[in-house]
Amino acid sequence: MEEPSETTSSTHASNLEAFWVVGFVDGEGCFYVGINPHREMTTGFQVLPEFTVVQHERDVQLLHKMKEFFGCGVVRSNHGDRLAYRVRDLKHLSQIIVPFFERHRLKSKKYIDFLKFRRVIMLMQRGDHLKKEGLEEIKQIASVMNRGGEDRVQLAGDRQDDN
Amino acid sequence: MEEPSETTSSTHASNLEAFWVVGFVDGEGCFYVGINPHREMTTGFQVLPEFTVVQHERDVQLLHKMKEFFGCGVVRSNHGDRLAYRVRDLKHLSQIIVPFFERHRLKSKKYIDFLKFRRVIMLMQRGDHLKKEGLEEIKQIASVMNRGGEDRVQLAGDRQDDN
Repeated sequence: MEEPSETTSSTHASNLEAFWVVGFVDGEGCFYVGINPHREMTTGFQVLPEFTVVQHERDVQLLHKMKEFFGCGVVRSNHGDRLAYRVRDLKHLSQIIVPFFERHRLKSKKYIDFLKFRRVIMLMQRGDHLKKEGLEEIKQIASVMNRGGEDRVQLAGDRQDDN
Repeated sequence: MEEPSETTSSTHASNLEAFWVVGFVDGEGCFYVGINPHREMTTGFQVLPEFTVVQHERDVQLLHKMKEFFGCGVVRSNHGDRLAYRVRDLKHLSQIIVPFFERHRLKSKKYIDFLKFRRVIMLMQRGDHLKKEGLEEIKQIASVMNRGGEDRVQLAGDRQDDN
């Protein structure tokens, strides 16, 4: 059983409850590991993990509340009339996002993606993504994330590291 | 501030927390009012409100947990590999679903749909949907529900009243 304070606004700047955030992320959230070809990296690839929640623009206020709740990340336009709350900074992912979802377990199959995502973050913290073997493991993990376990590597498009 | 017991499984048969349910419904839920041509009704139309949550089949367990949580409704196949938890029974909608979301306010713009849905349920409880004026009001309300406020009447397909 959670402490009551965990479910209210008292521990956070926003007025979201932790359980609400988990339910919303079970519905709308995404743990994603992009692997981009990158000339300047020794391995030839850049590993880009991100946590995102996408919404129609009418609910952009919820994305800003998510940003307040976690105290990190950005709200940016996504596709068309949709916007995304997203966290890409490795420190924010490892020190805020991952620990939150360790304390508050997802109930959907996204939990399995989260465990894989957490493994990638851990490998990156050790610098393993900069070595051939580590990168191979990350590619392997990314290939079975999202899309209900389809066997494919997620190749992210060019993106700015604005977070 | 909610009572702690409201956020845990202690008041419900399932192990979902109320705030989690609200977050999940903010993401994945739908309050819908179908209006079907119906020869046997005096007004010529049947009003069919429903509350649904749709998920990919991999997360069907969550839909069953929703059913346990509310103690009403059914889990049925939806389209392709998707399933829906849905509640159509007027008594269940008026006595369980509507009161729950009155106590636990949605944070997304779905709250506006919920208020319209609640008004339709109230009109139906008074039998107003069986009269021309009441039906007109319901049609008016249904025309501005969902789809971010597009002005259209939702015409449901034929359906079995299996709940």
